[in-house]
Amino acid sequence: MNHRIETLFGTEYPIVQGGMVWCSGWRLASAVSNAGGLGLLGAGSMHPDTLREHIRKCRAATDKPFGVNIPLMYPQIDEIMQLVVDEGVRIVFTSAGSPAQWTGWLKARGMTVVHVVSSSRFARKAEEAGVDAVVAEGFEAGGHNGREETTTLCLIPAVRAATSLPLIAAGGIATGAAMLAVRALGAEGVQIGTRFALTEESSAHPAFKEYCLHLQEGDTKLLLKKLSPVRLIKNAFRTQVEASEARGASEEELRALLSKGRAKRGILEGELDEGELEIGQVASLFNGRPVQTVNQVMKELTSQYFMALEQLNQCDPDLSNVSST
Amino acid sequence: MNHRIETLFGTEYPIVQGGMVWCSGWRLASAVSNAGGLGLLGAGSMHPDTLREHIRKCRAATDKPFGVNIPLMYPQIDEIMQLVVDEGVRIVFTSAGSPAQWTGWLKARGMTVVHVVSSSRFARKAEEAGVDAVVAEGFEAGGHNGREETTTLCLIPAVRAATSLPLIAAGGIATGAAMLAVRALGAEGVQIGTRFALTEESSAHPAFKEYCLHLQEGDTKLLLKKLSPVRLIKNAFRTQVEASEARGASEEELRALLSKGRAKRGILEGELDEGELEIGQVASLFNGRPVQTVNQVMKELTSQYFMALEQLNQCDPDLSNVSST
Repeated sequence: MNHRIETLFGTEYPIVQGGMVWCSGWRLASAVSNAGGLGLLGAGSMHPDTLREHIRKCRAATDKPFGVNIPLMYPQIDEIMQLVVDEGVRIVFTSAGSPAQWTGWLKARGMTVVHVVSSSRFARKAEEAGVDAVVAEGFEAGGHNGREETTTLCLIPAVRAATSLPLIAAGGIATGAAMLAVRALGAEGVQIGTRFALTEESSAHPAFKEYCLHLQEGDTKLLLKKLSPVRLIKNAFRTQVEASEARGASEEELRALLSKGRAKRGILEGELDEGELEIGQVASLFNGRPVQTVNQVMKELTSQYFMALEQLNQCDPDLSNVSST
Repeated sequence: MNHRIETLFGTEYPIVQGGMVWCSGWRLASAVSNAGGLGLLGAGSMHPDTLREHIRKCRAATDKPFGVNIPLMYPQIDEIMQLVVDEGVRIVFTSAGSPAQWTGWLKARGMTVVHVVSSSRFARKAEEAGVDAVVAEGFEAGGHNGREETTTLCLIPAVRAATSLPLIAAGGIATGAAMLAVRALGAEGVQIGTRFALTEESSAHPAFKEYCLHLQEGDTKLLLKKLSPVRLIKNAFRTQVEASEARGASEEELRALLSKGRAKRGILEGELDEGELEIGQVASLFNGRPVQTVNQVMKELTSQYFMALEQLNQCDPDLSNVSST
């Protein structure tokens, strides 16, 4: 039980780098894998040809295991699934859709399959579909998000109770102390997005990284709930979204406002005013911090984890004998 | 540092029972105090005369420390503040307002003062005002809630970094494992609302407790953000609120819909359809569980805490030597 995540992926540490649009190409994924975690290519923002190129470059850059995250609403889903099989990918994380359709197909081709869920109900469905593990991602996570708004603190114990599958916690985890916290709740590993999105090796625009490293608490907010809830960073575009929503804008109006390519403009091209900017709530903890390398982040995470564990053990909270009056 | 909460309050355990409208009268508060935690009377739903009666009954029912939670937007705030002083209350938790006005006044009268915050910015203001400790309460908490929607997992490390005051975590904490998780994040104690609201000793209506013990994930939602954000349980009243908000209802319309006395009708009188029902997101973890006594809850919390700590220590996550490639 204690090492199920490392055993499943063949990694040194139970740390997964979340697949993120416009951030997680081969440079980020291979750096995380080389540092002992599991790097994921984010297929969500890649055309099939681009993904093929990233898989090949990632393999050239690391001999460690890595994987691909595939949102199940990907337009050319058949093509992309065949592609990851053909390219010899061994680990697929699926998200944003039902795991029923593809899990068996991938498993039959020898793939390790992990599905991202936002509720214990979806975790049970993923287990029925035959996945090898689940990522349970809470409300505080960046980007697209569950409708039920369950936070990581409430979600992890619920999913832990619902399934015996290996459980990876996500949403709000960017420090070793948070890794320890979610392990206390029953998770066996962590998926970290925000912290890795802001590293040197992330393909996000430098201006985007700088902007994210200067956020205050409350600067991200879950919006566009009439479409698909997404956590957005405050900027001119988001102000428009909020104004539209406050006056009760319809799905169509919101879709027109969102338009195509906003996330690319914001995250990859660094268009900070009119782009769609996505990051996790936890970014504000790193206000004023420099952009770090993946190796620096991994070292901090792991050393902080042990420091936090040591501190916990030093606490003797005098809880050993409750009065029984 | 490790026992600052117990030392501050003179309690056995660093466990505070949140002051909650229509739930936390003298029966609940005295039961928690007798079991070694800190019971709080919730003044928010009491007329001054009622509060006086509850203070006296609470004192008759326990010789242990207890306190009063006072929302700073309480209409007769001067009267209620004088009353708690006159009645010899030693511990006041303030919430929902600025701590600047009353903290010094209470401190000058020998009171221990704790303020509830939803951000590190408010925590710093509370420290400047001279409070003895802060409660940092996350998005998942029941009832009235911060505008920034910061979850407990993200909030606790932020507040921990912002102040050296004794720090009590709240929001989403209903188990010993969650107590351990927030201690890993830097909290020294916990404030628990939901779990105590659903005990025998809570003055909430039995039908309300039963309803809350049969919730699914996603059944509570933060709404009425144009007024003051509040986490509501799904029912006929909330459906009306959501429909109004979806079409962009104004503050005035929402205020008219909310009207007076809704929370009393829902929580105290058990009017499940038309009442305003408030509980924390974590309630769904207890789906199908019976109503428990405060003593049962306290015993579970403390024994779970130690089980979770033991399990954490059994995990050896192999994080001790990150590769430095």
